[in-house]
Amino acid sequence: MGIYLDHAATTPPDPRVLEAMLRHLREVRGNPSSIHSGGVAARNAIEEAREEVARLLGAEPQEIIFTGGGTEADNLAVFGLARAAGEKRHIVAAPIEHPAVRNAVKHLEAGGYEVTWLEVDAYGVVDPEAFRRALRPDTAFATVMWANNEVGSVQPVAELAEICRECGVPFHTDAVQAVGHLPVSVEEAPVFTLAFSGHKLYGPPGVGVLYVREGVELAPVSFGGGQERGLRNGTENVAGICGLGVACRIARAELEERMRHERELRDRIISGLTRIPGVSLNGHPERRLPNNVHVSVDGVEAEGLVLVLDAQGFAVGKGSACSSGEHKASPVLLAMGLGEREAFSAVRISVGRENTVEEVDRFVEAFSGAVAGLRELSPLRTGG
Amino acid sequence: MGIYLDHAATTPPDPRVLEAMLRHLREVRGNPSSIHSGGVAARNAIEEAREEVARLLGAEPQEIIFTGGGTEADNLAVFGLARAAGEKRHIVAAPIEHPAVRNAVKHLEAGGYEVTWLEVDAYGVVDPEAFRRALRPDTAFATVMWANNEVGSVQPVAELAEICRECGVPFHTDAVQAVGHLPVSVEEAPVFTLAFSGHKLYGPPGVGVLYVREGVELAPVSFGGGQERGLRNGTENVAGICGLGVACRIARAELEERMRHERELRDRIISGLTRIPGVSLNGHPERRLPNNVHVSVDGVEAEGLVLVLDAQGFAVGKGSACSSGEHKASPVLLAMGLGEREAFSAVRISVGRENTVEEVDRFVEAFSGAVAGLRELSPLRTGG
Ligand SMILES: Cc1ncc(COP(=O)(O)O)c(C=O)c1O
Ligand SMILES: Cc1ncc(COP(=O)(O)O)c(C=O)c1O
Repeated sequence: MGIYLDHAATTPPDPRVLEAMLRHLREVRGNPSSIHSGGVAARNAIEEAREEVARLLGAEPQEIIFTGGGTEADNLAVFGLARAAGEKRHIVAAPIEHPAVRNAVKHLEAGGYEVTWLEVDAYGVVDPEAFRRALRPDTAFATVMWANNEVGSVQPVAELAEICRECGVPFHTDAVQAVGHLPVSVEEAPVFTLAFSGHKLYGPPGVGVLYVREGVELAPVSFGGGQERGLRNGTENVAGICGLGVACRIARAELEERMRHERELRDRIISGLTRIPGVSLNGHPERRLPNNVHVSVDGVEAEGLVLVLDAQGFAVGKGSACSSGEHKASPVLLAMGLGEREAFSAVRISVGRENTVEEVDRFVEAFSGAVAGLRELSPLRTGG
Repeated sequence: MGIYLDHAATTPPDPRVLEAMLRHLREVRGNPSSIHSGGVAARNAIEEAREEVARLLGAEPQEIIFTGGGTEADNLAVFGLARAAGEKRHIVAAPIEHPAVRNAVKHLEAGGYEVTWLEVDAYGVVDPEAFRRALRPDTAFATVMWANNEVGSVQPVAELAEICRECGVPFHTDAVQAVGHLPVSVEEAPVFTLAFSGHKLYGPPGVGVLYVREGVELAPVSFGGGQERGLRNGTENVAGICGLGVACRIARAELEERMRHERELRDRIISGLTRIPGVSLNGHPERRLPNNVHVSVDGVEAEGLVLVLDAQGFAVGKGSACSSGEHKASPVLLAMGLGEREAFSAVRISVGRENTVEEVDRFVEAFSGAVAGLRELSPLRTGG
């Protein structure tokens, strides 16, 4: 196996997570809704996991709703808050949101909601004062993500949530990139709802969480057997939920060390890559995810660079996430003021627990060689 | 571990399914949307699984949408067909639907849709002629499940789908209990959409399928990265999807033998239990799921009976599914004309691959003893 540097896209599950999932899949027999002892064991396993998740966020167990993923959690928050807000039909949102939030808000916009799309600075960060001014008496909810999945910039979420609390406006945050990588506390940030996803913190795929603060009204958007307080219907993915519980327990225990390790590798990559002429860092230089490097490489198409690196055994991401294969520059990068060309020459390198200093040094070398090689070939060549 | 006779609630995953999932979780590194080779491997694994699923149903791979479960697939069909139907605001539905369909349809009804709730006979079966008469020019869609999860009755779905095709009305069927237990073919039954769920056919929990016939219009109900043709957004649960592919492959290879085995055990239980005075079979005597036994036990409360059997190592289900712990008789049984009392004295026994003749014989004996014991104690005692 090569060297995996695409942890922002998905993380390999921790062996302890797999073990918990397997144990459950092999040993527990019962639907959590069944009243026999197998059903009770499944129910108890879910409730234990719920406690682990709550502990990681500084929440209460009953505030945790398990979903089928991060997107589902984000959609539930957006539509659930909108429908619970009744006549209020104004939304405040950041243009740098992940499509799970952005496209859900756009769907509401197309259906008649008025949306204030906030401006962001050159780092993709929202200004709290502008945010405050955007709130209105008819604002159904506001949403700004905790940390951006492309450029890694961290938003002043605690401050934004506090402003919303003062103004009585529900606030949702997409913390999919943050949970397990940064301290995320719903005590410190008075958010109404917060979403995250198992497969981004060494947990299982296909399971996510929506934190819903006690007392917050959320209209259901799915219908069925009434699981998860009627907010996420369908037989629970017990094994996945147990795996996520373990991932959260590990994150809580190892967060400091994980961040230290990730930061060390990240900074080593940043300083290595930015020494290459024509390579510039995107996103906030300090207030960024500990595992995220995002650079534009002058004169090089990102897609080619990713493929050349892949052929050498290094897995990294294109820096301009395009959905469903469309060749469009990322709205995130455009909102930050980058041009199309810089956007298409951006790559994202995201480190993880299992990466080593030696690996990232080899990576920097390979990157440098790949860039030189591509610039030789490239019609975009601008010198440098 | 005791003897598990609650396969209609959930099935233990096949060891070959677990192996495929584990292999994926351990070895493949990459989000299916990533362009590096790990991402490509993940994408290919999904497409292979899609082919296996399609083969089981007699469908084309591009007609298969992976979801986070059976409920999600049912919800997507109900809301997707309703929204795609524009001005048509009439729905035809059976009252014996699972809550995943019934509660979704009720939500539309509360929002202004007119719903014709079909009558069913004493076995819970819909009459095709009455079904035909219920269809109207403004019918957005009709829905009748393939086989009922409580009493096991199989509906004449091929005939109903054919009627809908003649009338140009979209038809959805919930085949969660049927796929992997009965031959289910979208060639023979010209349904528009069909839902099923991994954990009911020895596959993984947390993954389901919506079959969407080529050309059928379905409005999206979730928003995000555009996965699954924009119909189910969010990073794919690749391991779960691979596991489901294997479960479908196994089901196709072993269906005949599985059905033969299940029928043998089922009929042995039915003849054993119905010999006990005051025990009567619910649902259709012949056209029923091969693994389903559903009986009412005169003078006995189902909950007590399930718990007594559990204490003796037998896991069975209450026959009257109540959602979210409410003490209400199942709408399915009431629609079939049973009284509250018969409903609350109903238990469901659902056999599976790993059960043996010897096990079910022991079960029949234990059941008989438990019923006698409870009747001694019961205030409901009516003699017999
Ligand atoms: C007939 C039927 N439909 C739908 C469902 C819902 O499937 P899931 O619980 O996997 O979401 C079930 C199972 O609970 C079922 O038996
Ligand atoms: C910031 C952010 N939000 C939401 C999501 C969606 O999560 P998932 O793909 O698990 O549904 C992702 C990941 O893809 C993400 O990075």
